[in-house]
Amino acid sequence: MNKISKVLIANRGEIALRIIRACKELEITSVAIFSEADVEGLWVRKADECYPILGDVIQAYLNYETIISMAKKANCDAIHPGYGFLSENADFAKACEENGIIFIGPKPEHIALFGDKMASKVAMKEVGVPILEGTNEPIEDKKEAKKIASQIGYPIIIKAAFGGGGRGMRIVRQEKEFDSMFDTATNEALKFFGNGQVFIEKYVENPRHIEVQIIADKYGNVVHLGERDCSIQRRHQKVIEISPSPRLNQEVRKELYRIATKAMFKLGYESVGTVEFLVDENDNIFFIEMNTRVQVEHPVTEITSGIDIIQRMIEIADGDKMKYMQEEINFRGYAIEFRINAENPQKNFMPSVGTIEKYLTPNGPGVRLDSAAYTGYKVPANYDSMIGKLIVWALDWEGTVKKARRALDEFVLEGFPTNIELHREIVRDEDFKEGNLTTSYLDTKMDKFKLGAKDHLKDEEKKMSKIMQFIKSIKSKNLKVRN
Amino acid sequence: MNKISKVLIANRGEIALRIIRACKELEITSVAIFSEADVEGLWVRKADECYPILGDVIQAYLNYETIISMAKKANCDAIHPGYGFLSENADFAKACEENGIIFIGPKPEHIALFGDKMASKVAMKEVGVPILEGTNEPIEDKKEAKKIASQIGYPIIIKAAFGGGGRGMRIVRQEKEFDSMFDTATNEALKFFGNGQVFIEKYVENPRHIEVQIIADKYGNVVHLGERDCSIQRRHQKVIEISPSPRLNQEVRKELYRIATKAMFKLGYESVGTVEFLVDENDNIFFIEMNTRVQVEHPVTEITSGIDIIQRMIEIADGDKMKYMQEEINFRGYAIEFRINAENPQKNFMPSVGTIEKYLTPNGPGVRLDSAAYTGYKVPANYDSMIGKLIVWALDWEGTVKKARRALDEFVLEGFPTNIELHREIVRDEDFKEGNLTTSYLDTKMDKFKLGAKDHLKDEEKKMSKIMQFIKSIKSKNLKVRN
Repeated sequence: MNKISKVLIANRGEIALRIIRACKELEITSVAIFSEADVEGLWVRKADECYPILGDVIQAYLNYETIISMAKKANCDAIHPGYGFLSENADFAKACEENGIIFIGPKPEHIALFGDKMASKVAMKEVGVPILEGTNEPIEDKKEAKKIASQIGYPIIIKAAFGGGGRGMRIVRQEKEFDSMFDTATNEALKFFGNGQVFIEKYVENPRHIEVQIIADKYGNVVHLGERDCSIQRRHQKVIEISPSPRLNQEVRKELYRIATKAMFKLGYESVGTVEFLVDENDNIFFIEMNTRVQVEHPVTEITSGIDIIQRMIEIADGDKMKYMQEEINFRGYAIEFRINAENPQKNFMPSVGTIEKYLTPNGPGVRLDSAAYTGYKVPANYDSMIGKLIVWALDWEGTVKKARRALDEFVLEGFPTNIELHREIVRDEDFKEGNLTTSYLDTKMDKFKLGAKDHLKDEEKKMSKIMQFIKSIKSKNLKVRN
Repeated sequence: MNKISKVLIANRGEIALRIIRACKELEITSVAIFSEADVEGLWVRKADECYPILGDVIQAYLNYETIISMAKKANCDAIHPGYGFLSENADFAKACEENGIIFIGPKPEHIALFGDKMASKVAMKEVGVPILEGTNEPIEDKKEAKKIASQIGYPIIIKAAFGGGGRGMRIVRQEKEFDSMFDTATNEALKFFGNGQVFIEKYVENPRHIEVQIIADKYGNVVHLGERDCSIQRRHQKVIEISPSPRLNQEVRKELYRIATKAMFKLGYESVGTVEFLVDENDNIFFIEMNTRVQVEHPVTEITSGIDIIQRMIEIADGDKMKYMQEEINFRGYAIEFRINAENPQKNFMPSVGTIEKYLTPNGPGVRLDSAAYTGYKVPANYDSMIGKLIVWALDWEGTVKKARRALDEFVLEGFPTNIELHREIVRDEDFKEGNLTTSYLDTKMDKFKLGAKDHLKDEEKKMSKIMQFIKSIKSKNLKVRN
């Protein structure tokens, strides 16, 4: 079709740069927007055009009327929302449509459906997806909620009905804890999402978080690009993502692909998306949610499948047919993504800010870095703490873990605390090497990791200064060195 | 077997770092050596141990007695020679053997055989490889040489019998040019290789340079990892390498694989190696030479085949059996390598020296960088001008060319002239896009490329300063901006 020739990117940071790169590779003009806090952003420079949005630095990426009018002024025919911000806002997608601008993502009704956790559970159950027992409707009444919890049986989990990212979420293991947990969950939900409604469902102990990447075009063609294991999380936020899952039973894997693709086909989903599941110790499968956007962790799938997810997402929004049949998609090796966060794992992951003083990034075979950081970049305090993603690949799992160690050891980022050292500890942990991963992995391991003990860079400096002294001493003695 | 636990790397620059990375990923201790000119080398820091070799900065990497004694002192059980320097020195390989150190490479007799262009032609002909008509023995006598040239028929090429890299090489198109060409070729051969002997062979006009990557273990297992198209050369030096060749007939491709693997099997070759061919306009195949080392351009093959060539090379030297059967090796997509040289293409490729003042390397999907450079690195004048290799990959040829443009445009390297802009011109050239490549490609195109016309970085700076002025002007007027 090729209506899309100019795209506004309604996002910032590494994902803005990722989308700009996809545009360049598709020969599409890219337009960046940026807040006053982001004038030094690398994506601003790399875009073909860029426009400041003055005023509140958060609203800059959220005020969709401003963004749409800017897209129209700049003659953009499409908007890519990235992840976070407006990416799962059905009203925004609809407003784009109404203004004659292509929203690069799913249809507004699908965004709305899957943004409502309760409604999406009902819809997915109808198309054959196994879900967790729980409330079918948002609840505000504590008494009623407690009754349902007893019926399901503890442990249960309370989740914000219109939330995400771990906010408004509480696990209740005994009835006597219920009341206070319910209060804190609903208060958080109200505070962060403007709606105190929650839902209650069976809690699965020590599950793996396994998600299936989907691509669907406008003509009913749905393919999957394999699964990702995102079990390593802190406070329900993913930290490390792996594709394929290193210990998933092949039958379970196939079943997940079948369920996910069939559901998306039946629901008429378009664009890229991710169907998230929990898999318990007995390989039972439970749908948790559907993400109607490109995800942070999409690179691991791009590497194993060889398919550029952002490029295909743009083409599908433009009306193109699916480029690859399921049978043509070949998976190769293992990929791991490490989120590089400006945060201090020793201080309960407190976000850190500052300027990157030294920056030596890993490269060489099997290493990909998605980041908008650079030497001298000042990380603004206003946004998410993730400043990049390191992705490694090798043909087998063992080789990939060793590759990860090598690449993480090479990573020099000085100026503020990051979680790079935590990643170095994780990839040396036996359970990680064995692929023994559940969503409680990081909670149970944190105390065992030795953070702050080593300083790679100082060790290097020491080694080098010894050698320089040796060279000097030889020269001062005017000796000829022969070995 | 696993005898190898500590490896000395008898090389410098990006290939030293590449080998250190492979060692780390195999959990082998790495030992770097460095000349006085290389104390700031990144590979020196990244190796587990490092030792200076004082005195002449070239000899530091060539004096193999010193290197072997250093390896013994440091308790290394193996030496990796990289490319260049001692990598194709049979005496060095033999000396390693005699000192109980594993030489990570082929057997000395194969290095010696293929180091002698004449002998290797004879040997390859015997095992069924089509060669170019020419002299079977080195010649010094001009009259005899001229007689042979007439018998073969012009155009012919005169080549140094014991040389490489384009030195002592002359193309003669007419008999009347023969005498003076012969004199300059033999003089150059004498000057650079200490031996004035040459050989004469049929010259193929506008061929493609196609080479086949081989891996062979000690047990007679030989596999190929596909071919590389290295037709883009300046002064017989490769500049850009591609895998697979974008326009090679599938039958010719299969034939090249068959010839190369069969020859290596019959000759009992071990380790990695490359069989180089010319393919003429009528798809005739001519063997030119065999490289008994890992090559600069190995990364394109690693990316398309998924196999780590340096890791496998070390394992095979250690007595391991081949890890993959030919049928298990799957090729995917296209990869292009761009050699990043400190040189000025506008001044006849004159080598440049200096300090890297600004260094912003491309990354993101499908981009690999093999380089030991960093911000502040001072490139020594004593060595090869290549300071890194940018490798890009995508599922199809068109996508790979676009990826190359994007990645090259992102590359910022300030401080001295490089050939990055030349690469940017090449990837925008129609013949390159169409894959119309022969060894005369660069010679015929150089005049058409517009070098020095654009300045990406300055354009960015201009754009940004305009925007900053705009923001300032709005703020000074104390206006509230709403779009």
